[in-house]
Order: sequence, then C-alpha cells, then structure tokens
Amino acid sequence: MNYQKIINSLGIILMIIGISMVFPLLWSLYYGDSDCRAFFLSSCITLFVGFVSYKDTEAEGNIQNKEAFCIVVMGWLLASCFGTLPYLLSGTFSSFADAFFETMSGFTTTGASVLSNIEGLPHGVLFWRSFTHWLGGMGIIVLFVALLSSLGTGGAQMFRAESPGPVSEKIKPRISETAKILWYTYLMLTILETILLCLFGMPLFDALCHTFGTLATGGFSTKNASVGYYSSPGIEWVIIIFMFLSGANFALHYHAFRAKSLKGYWRNSEFKVYSCIILIVIVLITFNINTDGYKSLGESIRGAAFQVVSIITTTGYATVDFDRWSSLSKAILITLMFIGGCAGSTGGSIKVGRILVLLKQTKLELQRSLHPRAILNMKIDRKNINDGVVVNILQFFFIYIAIGLAGTIFMASLGLDLVTAFTSVAATLGNVGPGMGLVGPTQNYAFIPDVGKYVLSFFMLLGRLELYTVLVLFLPSFWRK
Amino acid sequence: MNYQKIINSLGIILMIIGISMVFPLLWSLYYGDSDCRAFFLSSCITLFVGFVSYKDTEAEGNIQNKEAFCIVVMGWLLASCFGTLPYLLSGTFSSFADAFFETMSGFTTTGASVLSNIEGLPHGVLFWRSFTHWLGGMGIIVLFVALLSSLGTGGAQMFRAESPGPVSEKIKPRISETAKILWYTYLMLTILETILLCLFGMPLFDALCHTFGTLATGGFSTKNASVGYYSSPGIEWVIIIFMFLSGANFALHYHAFRAKSLKGYWRNSEFKVYSCIILIVIVLITFNINTDGYKSLGESIRGAAFQVVSIITTTGYATVDFDRWSSLSKAILITLMFIGGCAGSTGGSIKVGRILVLLKQTKLELQRSLHPRAILNMKIDRKNINDGVVVNILQFFFIYIAIGLAGTIFMASLGLDLVTAFTSVAATLGNVGPGMGLVGPTQNYAFIPDVGKYVLSFFMLLGRLELYTVLVLFLPSFWRK
Repeated sequence: MNYQKIINSLGIILMIIGISMVFPLLWSLYYGDSDCRAFFLSSCITLFVGFVSYKDTEAEGNIQNKEAFCIVVMGWLLASCFGTLPYLLSGTFSSFADAFFETMSGFTTTGASVLSNIEGLPHGVLFWRSFTHWLGGMGIIVLFVALLSSLGTGGAQMFRAESPGPVSEKIKPRISETAKILWYTYLMLTILETILLCLFGMPLFDALCHTFGTLATGGFSTKNASVGYYSSPGIEWVIIIFMFLSGANFALHYHAFRAKSLKGYWRNSEFKVYSCIILIVIVLITFNINTDGYKSLGESIRGAAFQVVSIITTTGYATVDFDRWSSLSKAILITLMFIGGCAGSTGGSIKVGRILVLLKQTKLELQRSLHPRAILNMKIDRKNINDGVVVNILQFFFIYIAIGLAGTIFMASLGLDLVTAFTSVAATLGNVGPGMGLVGPTQNYAFIPDVGKYVLSFFMLLGRLELYTVLVLFLPSFWRK
Repeated sequence: MNYQKIINSLGIILMIIGISMVFPLLWSLYYGDSDCRAFFLSSCITLFVGFVSYKDTEAEGNIQNKEAFCIVVMGWLLASCFGTLPYLLSGTFSSFADAFFETMSGFTTTGASVLSNIEGLPHGVLFWRSFTHWLGGMGIIVLFVALLSSLGTGGAQMFRAESPGPVSEKIKPRISETAKILWYTYLMLTILETILLCLFGMPLFDALCHTFGTLATGGFSTKNASVGYYSSPGIEWVIIIFMFLSGANFALHYHAFRAKSLKGYWRNSEFKVYSCIILIVIVLITFNINTDGYKSLGESIRGAAFQVVSIITTTGYATVDFDRWSSLSKAILITLMFIGGCAGSTGGSIKVGRILVLLKQTKLELQRSLHPRAILNMKIDRKNINDGVVVNILQFFFIYIAIGLAGTIFMASLGLDLVTAFTSVAATLGNVGPGMGLVGPTQNYAFIPDVGKYVLSFFMLLGRLELYTVLVLFLPSFWRK
C-alpha cells in the first residue's frame, strides 16, 4: 500500500469537512449565538490538518483496491472524529464518547441521539447535526469522487465501497460524472423539499434541517418531539413523500427527471417491491392502531404512514410514540428495520434489492432440491444475476444477523433488557435511529455506558458502509504485503 | 407420482406407530391405570388403518424424489394425527389442537407442552409422551428405512429428507444398513443411560422416560418441575452428559465404539466447535449467575452446564428458571437456540456444522471482495465443500431467519408480547421447547389460541425436517406432472 496516497486523499476529505463547517458558522453568526467561536476554531483546525496532510503530487491517481478500502473507512472515521470538534468546543458535550456517538450517528444518517433537550441548543450546533446527515447521506466519498475527476479506477472502487446496494449502477461511464449527477439530483430534491416545508409554514432554518434529515434518511430534528412538534398534516405528508423518495434509488429519480416520465419507476422491480411493502404495512398498521385512541381514520393512516415510511427508509423521525403500539405493530416495525431502503438510496439496512434476490433465490433453491441436476438462473428486470452476486448477498445476510446477535449479547452484558439490547443494535446497524424500550422514539441513548456508545457507533459505520468495506480491514491478509 | 406407492409406505409407517402404542399399554396394565382402554383402542385403530392402506405389491421399491418428499412429510403428519388418539381417548385433552400440539411436540423432540399438571397423568400417557420423543429423535423414517431393505434409491432419498444436517453421512454403502446401525447405537445409549439413572436412584419408569427425553433431545419430563424435581447432582450430571452426547453426531459414537477409541471425535471439526461453544458459554454463564443466589461455585457450574447443554442440544429440560437470569445469560441462551446440535445428531435448529460453514464462508467472501479474481475453496476436515452445498446452507440460514421473523409477527398478532412471540417461534422452529416470558421454563403453551398452536406445530415440523423437505411441497411445480 502507498500510504502517501491514502494520507493525501484523507487530507482532501478533511478539507471538505472543514469547509462544511463554514455553513453552521454562518447560521451562528446570523443568529448571534455563542457557538460561532467553536465553529470558527473547528473549521480552522480541520482545514489546517487536511491542508498539512495533502501533498500536491500525482499520487491520488490509480488507487489500488486495498487503498480504496482504507481511504473510505479512515475517511469516515476521521470525519467523525473532526466532526466532534464543534460539539466539544461549544460545550454541547463534555465527553468525547457522546460527541463521537452523535457525530457518527449524524454522518451515517442513523439519527440516534444522546441529547435529551435538543431545543436548548444554539443554532449552529443544530445545523451542524443535520448537516452531517446531509453530507453522509449521499456520501462523503461520493462527494470526494465528484469533486476529483483524476482518480481513475480507484474512484470507482471507492464509490463502490461506499455506495449502498449489492451492485452499484453507473449512470455515466465515468464514475466522477455519475457521482456529480447523484449529488445534483440530491441537491435539487433538497431545494424542493425546503421550499415545500416553508410553504406549509415551517421556518426556513427548521425546514433546511428537516430536509437534511429527510433526504439523507437521517432523523435528527431541531425539536424534542421530532416532527410531532409541528402537529401539521401538511408538513407530515411532505416529509412522508420525501422520506419515501429518499428510500428509493436516486438513479431512478435522475432518469425520471431526464426522461420527464415516471415509467422508469414501474420498470424497476426493487421499486415496485419497496412500494408494495410500504402500502401493505401501512394498511395493516392503520387497522391495528385505529382502536388505540386515534381520532379519525385519516389520522390513523397518517400516523401509520409516517412511522412506517420513517422506519423502512431508516430515517427515524417520529410523530407518535410507536413503542406504545401493540406488539403486532412493533414486531412489524422491527422487521422493517431489517429491510431498509432500496439500493442506490440514502436508506440503510439490508436493502429491498437484497431481500428481493434472497426471496427469488429461496424459490430457486427449493426447485434445486427437487431437481438436483437442473440449471436454474436468476433474472431481475431481465438481467441475469450471477452466482457470485447471489452468494455475496446471502453471505451479507448471514453476517448482518450474526453481528446483530453478537451485538445483542454485548449490549445485554451492559445490563440492558432484551428488547432494548436487540433494538439498539438493530437500529444502529440499520442506521434507523430509535429502537424500542429504553431507546424508543421518546427516549435517547444517553444512559448507555461509554463502551456501549463506541460499539454502537462502530455498528453505525458497519451498517452505512455495508459490512464488507469495514470488515476486510480485519483480515490479517489485508495488512500483509 | 405413484400415489399407491405413497399410500403403501404411509401404511407401514402407521403400523409402526400402532405397534409402538403397545409399550405404553403394557405400562398402563402394569400400573392398573384407567388409560389402558384408550391405548388398546388407539393401537387397534392405527394398526387397522395402516393395514388397510398397505397393499402387498412390489410398489415400495424405486421411490422417486417427489414421492420420497411426500412420504416423509405425510408420514410425520399422519404419525402426529394418529399419535393424538391416546390423549383424546384417555381424556387427557378435550381439544384436538392441544393433543396435536403435544404429539407434534413429542415426535419432533421439541418438548413444548400445553399441560400444566404433568404429575396427575396416568403412566401410559406419560410413557407415550416420552416415547414419541424417542421414536422421532432418531427418526420415524430412519426406522422405516432400517426395517425395509427393499427401498432402493428411494430409501436414501427419504433418509436424506429426514436426517438432520447439510450432508448426510453414509456409515455403510447400503442406506438400510446405515439406518440399522444408527438405531442400534441409539438403543445402546438408551439402555446405558437408563441403567445409570436407576443407579442414581431414579425409579425405572422415570429413568426410561427421562432417557427418551434426553437421547432424543426432546425435553418432556414426568415431573412438573422437570429434572429439577430430583434435586440430585448425580442425576443432573448423567443427563448433562447424555444430552451432550445426543447433540453430537451419532456416526461418531458408532465409530468410537467400533474402534474403541475417542480419536475420531477430535478429528471432527464440528464436534470440536460444538464442545468449545459449550465450554465457553458454561464459563460465561457460571460467572454471570454466580451472584444470583447460587450457594456454591459447584452449584453454579452445574446450573449453568445443565441449562446451556439443554438449550444448545435443543432438549429443553430445566433445573432452574432461566427466564429469571440476567439479560446477558438470556441473550446467550436465545443465541444458542439458533445454533443447535451437530449434523447427524438428534438435536434440532440450524446445527453447528452449518454455522461452521457460514463462518468459514464469511472469511472467504471477505477475501473475495479484496481479491475479486482469486479462486478460493472451502475445506472442512480435509474435504472440499462444494459451492452448491455452501449456497444451500446460506439459503437455509436466510429461510430460517425469515420464517422466524414472519412467525414472530404472526404470534404478536395473537396478542403475545415481543419476547414471548419471538422465543415461542425460536423454541418451536429450533425444536427446543421452552422459550422466555410467558413460554418460559416454568410456564407452558396452553394459553396460546388454537390457531397459534397449529402454526407453532407447523414450525416444529419445519424445524425437524429442516425446512426444505416441507417447503418443496409448497412449490406449484411439485404438483405438476
């Protein structure tokens, strides 16, 4: 491995993070809050370290496979370390564990928080929390690849290592073009949702923060009661629709926009399955909660739709305390935590596309046990899915569940009850945010011991980078020459 | 499909069940209990239906793949239906759902019960409950194959469809010889444990019933407090050792007995992993429960060892109420429910051998993402594991977890809390028996609505026949000519 190349790239990533800190600084200055000094300092420190690390050589070209994995994982870890500076310097957190948890939760778009009183925070800090969602949602590395067009094949490898889903789609032959298009689409949807939220009466600052939380499927809010604070059906429906869009493949949005036609959506099996699951579950839960004190059917539908879309897209916003729903609704929501959004979306967890392959493969495997000599191939959207991809997805499922179980045992060893332990792991590994029990939607993660916070932060990173990218670094052969 | 062939085989299976009912009848006569009429009638009815179905043609030879699946699944269903007769005729149960649940739980060696007062039952019924374990443990079909040597290749297919583990080992080239050897080994261990239990002061009747429950990894006891009733360290250690042996591959026991050497055990990776998991978990739980009111370290070790071996082998006997242990110990026990015994054992669940392949494959898949072009093969015990087997095992894991989640949602829809719903499914699908919460070791399954009992009975069968055998019957192509 060429360490200079890695350090170079990490330097650029840090400079991107440093520049990002200017936006909360501006809000802080606008509101005249006390945290502007913290943001100025944080930005300077991050930019300085980034600048010192970066040596202007041709080194960023031709990044090898191993180096790509290193850059992506180290880039995310460094971003989360330097991202804590505003929290620590402004005094929002006194402990590094808390600040690291909150930053990692932000960048990985998990949205799990250790804060109990959010409304008491200065504007700069609130903006930074939501802005980390936005940066991490489409991806720090995708942004890095979009900005640097000289990365060659290394760019494609890094892009693949960060982007969600089993196979990453190339919109354009050049990976930096693809990355640019994805970021433009993301930006346009951001502007659109902000305008809509403002039209429904949300102040601009809140609208921006909630847009970041929605489009990145993050879940940080500027209010203690999350989106429930506004008690506005209009705002809730806007957020439901944009959560739904953010859980779908962004390449589909781009194609629909280019072709000015919605046909592309219905030609995509993953999108169809994603929509069907959401519709069916909304109907089920609407009937299930309709007796639980909801006033009208309309309210029940909205309550069910909001929570269902929020959980399956792994956003984690809440308008009601779903931990008080019946165990049927809770069991369904926990299952949704393991499904997640579509490939190429900003959603986390296993992804609908993988579930689709797993279900089709189940049928194939049963046929195989009936006709051992038959040659059976899988097709999705008229494309053959080769065996290597299928095995990779099956294996992904096993690792995901195995980590989930091991994580539950670890969290239980810290004294958490079974439901809290299990859902805290499911909600961080799936980048959802709130779980059930003591980490339910009206609770927070503050009470968890520091070691638990670090482990859950690691799960967030594992989930966001879809296991393999992080786990290969633990292979002894990775570090051998 | 040749339906006459299927009906023929089912007739023989029913006759086996009918003859088996003579044993509880004898105990009933010996004790002069009121249930002897019930057993006499049940045996006659079952034998008569079996005899009428059986037509002495050459039809049992050359059974095809589809027919084999049909015979195995229908055989198990019929055995469980006719097995309810003694319960219903003796008045032990008034509802068919309860009787079917108890019989299926017996044959599949699950050991989940709907009875609250076991000690009040007549001896014949108690014996029949435990005897169903013993028949189902080594396998009704294996017994059928052992008794009929004229089955040809169909026998091997049925053997495979019933026997646990990803690849069934042939001890002898002829499948009926293999089946005979397995049943002899099983019988010898049965005699040995019964003698040992008697030596430690257990009455012969109880010793036989508990031996059936142990060797089949079943879990039905003749006492309300399960093995805890005897409060005898000697009895507990005998049962711990025999549960441990029953969770290991019976082919290994046979080879060890033939070669008069224990070397074969240590050459078997699965057995080594199985032993290591048990040892590590016993140590962990001993330390975890040592503060929970246990008097001495020895008692803690025994308590931990009994419960750990009972759960991983999917037996389900209990000497303490593990539902009152800390959430760490409970989380570990739930994880063990998903591991289960070894291939070729009488234990249920996923099996250590499959877990071993899944873990090795995880490493291979990570190496593959690092070196996409490398050719990597898996070896276990110096044998190559081909890709088809690996995919089959990965797929098995997915189906197992997917059914577990869907089952949890279904059980939650009946109003069960999350922990009860989840563990009731895990404990029946894994053929364990007791779960946590309302189905914990001191509770029973009586309160579950009838539809829930049928679904859980179906899960027991799915688990015992390792998913594929049952699920292929749901393929539309199975029924096409």
